[in-house]
Amino acid sequence: MGFWLVCSPQEEASSPRLTCTALGTLATSTATGVVEAMQDKGTIIVGVTPPSHPQPLRVAFTAARTANYTPGTLDQPITFDQLHSNLGEMFNTNVGRFICPANGTYVFLFHILKLAVNVPLYVNLMRNDEVMVSAYANDGAPDHETASNHSILQLYQGDQVWLRLHRGSIYGSSWKYSTFSGFLLYQD
Amino acid sequence: MGFWLVCSPQEEASSPRLTCTALGTLATSTATGVVEAMQDKGTIIVGVTPPSHPQPLRVAFTAARTANYTPGTLDQPITFDQLHSNLGEMFNTNVGRFICPANGTYVFLFHILKLAVNVPLYVNLMRNDEVMVSAYANDGAPDHETASNHSILQLYQGDQVWLRLHRGSIYGSSWKYSTFSGFLLYQD
Amino acid sequence: MGFWLVCSPQEEASSPRLTCTALGTLATSTATGVVEAMQDKGTIIVGVTPPSHPQPLRVAFTAARTANYTPGTLDQPITFDQLHSNLGEMFNTNVGRFICPANGTYVFLFHILKLAVNVPLYVNLMRNDEVMVSAYANDGAPDHETASNHSILQLYQGDQVWLRLHRGSIYGSSWKYSTFSGFLLYQD
Repeated sequence: MGFWLVCSPQEEASSPRLTCTALGTLATSTATGVVEAMQDKGTIIVGVTPPSHPQPLRVAFTAARTANYTPGTLDQPITFDQLHSNLGEMFNTNVGRFICPANGTYVFLFHILKLAVNVPLYVNLMRNDEVMVSAYANDGAPDHETASNHSILQLYQGDQVWLRLHRGSIYGSSWKYSTFSGFLLYQD
Repeated sequence: MGFWLVCSPQEEASSPRLTCTALGTLATSTATGVVEAMQDKGTIIVGVTPPSHPQPLRVAFTAARTANYTPGTLDQPITFDQLHSNLGEMFNTNVGRFICPANGTYVFLFHILKLAVNVPLYVNLMRNDEVMVSAYANDGAPDHETASNHSILQLYQGDQVWLRLHRGSIYGSSWKYSTFSGFLLYQD
Repeated sequence: MGFWLVCSPQEEASSPRLTCTALGTLATSTATGVVEAMQDKGTIIVGVTPPSHPQPLRVAFTAARTANYTPGTLDQPITFDQLHSNLGEMFNTNVGRFICPANGTYVFLFHILKLAVNVPLYVNLMRNDEVMVSAYANDGAPDHETASNHSILQLYQGDQVWLRLHRGSIYGSSWKYSTFSGFLLYQD
């Protein structure tokens, strides 16, 4: 991710003239700042690596739940036991919380399937202790039904985003009906 | 975001030879095109800022509705009263429309919760006056149920994207069950 | 997307001194490696195009189904007949499969509306032959109901992502209730 400048003096010139050609790109980034002086006929070769843009932060997770969950009390965090991805390692399945690593704009999505019982399911997407968006599912049969929603949030470093099971029971299965995802869209 | 080239002539050379070293990066972008010639021993220092990539456009909004909505006629726009984000300021909650600021690929998501009444809910995601995708929710109990869908759209500057309530009633609450989001994925 | 270095020897200098100025940016990328030597007074002009970051890969599709689908057997792929976008041309509607063009992190979303029949709908999001996440919809009325879910997946080039209709019937309509989307979030 750099380039070579090959510069040769024009031999007949009384004033210093260099003719330079930029060649390809360096094969690896290890050549940062490397300079080689090819002595023959005064030609110099300068290998320059332009300032690299810092590698943009990459943050993305999808967590899934494979076991039922029926907490005895209201407003419990939903935890997870599987991860399809956890780029940046900012989601902790055991506590069900994403911790924001850097200020920016993040997208969150969730789908939570209720147990086939006659209790409605209420899920809140929380930023710290504040309800951002919510989802509801009920089915009088009783049957399963999915509570889902999403939000794009401006987060500050250290903010915690999590799902709160306000009320109801979650159906878990190895087919992973209940999921929670987030990703960094734009870093500030 | 630039780099220094420090080039020194080799003193013993009869033909003009320069040996250059690339140093670090410039601390700020204010040094664009700045050149300093360090006179001592003919060494020159060139500070070059490569052409900056223009700051990529950032567009993202999540709007939510906290009040019920039962229009008397079909095919009304769904308006909103809360914003979780509105990067780029292209979503107008009062009219419920996103106006595309630049050609590109955009992602849209919506979740609209119906009132617990015996009228089905039909929602269309519109690009200008064209139905892109739709969602339906009904529950004979009667109960709430969510109409949701999404679409990735190629938009031109000025295109308007909005949700049309074809039929039905929306449940609003400070817990924000009914949401509409969009973001720029790739600018053309 | 390059820059000019205009370097002039200082005439009074006995040792070779060049004073360089970086000028603007090149109008087009066609100037890669072009060097022009302006003979007058030994000034050289070097037009350098920094190594371009390769144009980031852009992959995004939304497919929709406008016709009902009731396969006679379990576990059939869901095919589609409309595309709202297919950046990168990696989704094949006829077979309903996305083929990953490059290692990276991808986001997938789907919403599938069931027919108003008394058969539950089970949909699996598949990576090759493995169930990633699933969705369920049923409504005893019988009525329509949407099976939806999403996942962020780490994919390798050549991986195939598709929706499997484990069981049930899909409702199709020109209003496009049944959709499947994916996009590249971060390329490896």
